[in-house]
Amino acid sequence: MAQIKNDAITRQEDDFAQWYTDVCRKAKLMDYASTKGFIVYLPDGYALWEGIKNYLDKRFKEEVKARNVYLPLIIPSSLFNKEKEHVEGFAPETLVATIGGGKKLEDPLVIRPTSEVLFSDLYRKILSSYRDLPLIYNQWCSVVRWEKTTRPFLRGAEFLWQEGHCLFASKEEAVNNVLQVLDIYDRLGKELLATPFLKGRKTEREKFAGAVDTFSIEALMPDGKALQAGTTHYLGQGFAEAFGISYQGKNNALEIPHQTSWGVSTRLIGALIMCHGDDNGLVLPPAIAPIQVAIVPIRASVSGVMETARSLEKTLSNLGVRTFLYDDESKTPGYKFAELEMKGIPLRLEIGPKDLEKGEVSLTIRFSSEKRTLPLSAIATSIPSLLQEIQTKMYERAEKYRDQHITEVNSLEELKEVLDRGGYALMAHDGEEETELKIKELTNGGTARCIKEDIREKGTLCPISGKEAKYLCYFAKAY
Amino acid sequence: MAQIKNDAITRQEDDFAQWYTDVCRKAKLMDYASTKGFIVYLPDGYALWEGIKNYLDKRFKEEVKARNVYLPLIIPSSLFNKEKEHVEGFAPETLVATIGGGKKLEDPLVIRPTSEVLFSDLYRKILSSYRDLPLIYNQWCSVVRWEKTTRPFLRGAEFLWQEGHCLFASKEEAVNNVLQVLDIYDRLGKELLATPFLKGRKTEREKFAGAVDTFSIEALMPDGKALQAGTTHYLGQGFAEAFGISYQGKNNALEIPHQTSWGVSTRLIGALIMCHGDDNGLVLPPAIAPIQVAIVPIRASVSGVMETARSLEKTLSNLGVRTFLYDDESKTPGYKFAELEMKGIPLRLEIGPKDLEKGEVSLTIRFSSEKRTLPLSAIATSIPSLLQEIQTKMYERAEKYRDQHITEVNSLEELKEVLDRGGYALMAHDGEEETELKIKELTNGGTARCIKEDIREKGTLCPISGKEAKYLCYFAKAY
Repeated sequence: MAQIKNDAITRQEDDFAQWYTDVCRKAKLMDYASTKGFIVYLPDGYALWEGIKNYLDKRFKEEVKARNVYLPLIIPSSLFNKEKEHVEGFAPETLVATIGGGKKLEDPLVIRPTSEVLFSDLYRKILSSYRDLPLIYNQWCSVVRWEKTTRPFLRGAEFLWQEGHCLFASKEEAVNNVLQVLDIYDRLGKELLATPFLKGRKTEREKFAGAVDTFSIEALMPDGKALQAGTTHYLGQGFAEAFGISYQGKNNALEIPHQTSWGVSTRLIGALIMCHGDDNGLVLPPAIAPIQVAIVPIRASVSGVMETARSLEKTLSNLGVRTFLYDDESKTPGYKFAELEMKGIPLRLEIGPKDLEKGEVSLTIRFSSEKRTLPLSAIATSIPSLLQEIQTKMYERAEKYRDQHITEVNSLEELKEVLDRGGYALMAHDGEEETELKIKELTNGGTARCIKEDIREKGTLCPISGKEAKYLCYFAKAY
Repeated sequence: MAQIKNDAITRQEDDFAQWYTDVCRKAKLMDYASTKGFIVYLPDGYALWEGIKNYLDKRFKEEVKARNVYLPLIIPSSLFNKEKEHVEGFAPETLVATIGGGKKLEDPLVIRPTSEVLFSDLYRKILSSYRDLPLIYNQWCSVVRWEKTTRPFLRGAEFLWQEGHCLFASKEEAVNNVLQVLDIYDRLGKELLATPFLKGRKTEREKFAGAVDTFSIEALMPDGKALQAGTTHYLGQGFAEAFGISYQGKNNALEIPHQTSWGVSTRLIGALIMCHGDDNGLVLPPAIAPIQVAIVPIRASVSGVMETARSLEKTLSNLGVRTFLYDDESKTPGYKFAELEMKGIPLRLEIGPKDLEKGEVSLTIRFSSEKRTLPLSAIATSIPSLLQEIQTKMYERAEKYRDQHITEVNSLEELKEVLDRGGYALMAHDGEEETELKIKELTNGGTARCIKEDIREKGTLCPISGKEAKYLCYFAKAY
């Protein structure tokens, strides 16, 4: 059967940004809300977030020993203004409530853009002794950032995320916490999203407002742009000092704890869409796909077809495969194929009279468009391992793409060329903000994504400033 | 060993309201936020909400075929004002944002107090054909209501909840949906919270702003007051008409769908605390308890004690029992007992040298204060069934209390007496708002909680108005 083309969406090579928006809409992942910049997470989009949430929540609890909490969605302005760098970073993009119960509020309320301030205020109250440490709290919520330009999942006025906020007695424990979580984020990419990340420390210029060190995971999109997909921050003692958080140490002296925060958001859905999608729509890796296998009966009225389709559905469901029997007879197989492709279902099984005669099913793999036939008797043994194989192959394909798009550069010219073409330029960097500003200007928007490694030997120079280089750093244009 | 008394909290009989607040704080379920009316859900409190969420989410998906979505946390004022009755009900208690990104907003944004308006706006856009129906969406989020007097979990400026919003082709399907969900709420009470509810339709005066019919579950608290613990609404076609929601029916004519909404909130945690708590603190039913069994080693340094405690912990965990080994040696057994009681852990196991000699453990049941000994060899067979037994007995005790506090009344005098004493008065009612206003005034706050049954035969009179009665109705003072 000929491949059904989804003419409904723009082709990637014609306009990648428009292709992205088309997929978000046509795969019914989201809809625009009536307020500019806000979106509705529709069931097929929200289910992806539920998959991410379930994966992370389990690992946060088991590995990081995090406990979930929920803090208010508003921050009094007076509190919000306490940590100077932090306020400067977030104040310009806040939504502020000024009326409550019909009356003007004395202390306007900032809708949380992030909750460092609220957690710091809480910790000030509940921390008293070294016995209370560590405090490893996480919350699942939405935050609001009044952004000028917004794109579904990638940048929005409101997005869903998790934010971990922790206190430790030592810097060592705190840094260990941010690296442990960074590793979980990285595994999420591989095991769930089949999306490879680069992970590393941010430069001084790119770190979080108020942090000592920020680490990030970065994904490379098919248009050659990097996407920051998650961050973890070692906040040092700055917030604790600004908010008066202290505790009685083992030797009775007053101590200041070391703080961390970390988060990923629905932005990961954007990374997932772009990393694997094609001109027929969304392509989901099996691990995250809400439906892994769709069964389409062909000529369902012929004796035996529906019975076999139902029995297949039952067999697969019993194996724990998330299966959908598409038995709506008002729709043609062609319509169903196009829809299943648009929604990115990893595997499609067709069963019709001819297949039945031969005792087999026809099978189409979404990500590779590969078609196979499979004996009915082999379904139970083959499908689960095939899903695993698809997951691995999707990851490998994306990893190969990423690795092919990392280029070592040693001059401004080379840097410009790589950043114009798309992908990462790996370059020695002096770590100066000034140098990064210059790079941004000269490359039309290129930024330091994350540090690959420190340079310990003397003598390596930053090709942009000519000064001694501190580290090897990945540069790219970014979302 | 003598019962350790938790002197830290007010006794119920001295001041029930203060007892409640003390338990919320001392069991570390919540803390007050710096903004009046807002609270922090601490790990032990949030875990209760996670238990409720997991229970309901599974049943909504499996039984109600609901799909989760997420809509914005703000409603433009212009949209909010569309459904008249609804606005009148909610407008006085809204929080309104007027500044975004440093600029005054043209259309101020109401922080959602509930999302009927947003769902209606969405449905207007996505519904086109009868084939799209039913639409059964649910969301887990927080809502804001600018309340004057607030109490932890019971009434707050912001609370966590789920809100289901659905569209159906027929009234019958819509009403079936609200009754089906009401039944799930009722089962949640029994199976998870060991809290019996009355369930039934609300009177005209008590129904939701904009609904045709509201149904509720009501729990009776030990102070004799009823607590509305959840509601489901048949909204009819009013919202659909106000928001222009319509679809093409089977015969091509334009049809208006029938709408429902339903929700429960963190208020259920308040019901749980009051229904079972005592002067030693919280008492959790095993099904919802984040920790079901706590093991306390006595004289842990004696050979064999810690090994046995650890092996017990492993045995129980492997059986799926949520077990906590309290092995912090800096705390005395007495301190641990008081803390475990305050936190309401259903079952405490003690293992010391003497128990070890006899090959047994000592066991204390939190809700009944009953003590038993159990051969070590019987742990695996006995503990899971004992937890089930505790769940059942806690429910039965609460059910008995409720049933003993339902009194049929036939006059204003009797009504007053029952409502002053506490509990439900079951009375014939004409259904008039005027009558309920009179009752509220004359009984110092008594309200119609829910309807037990319609009265079909003529001749029964409402004892308050003297008019023909429509139904038998439960009245009580309420939270």
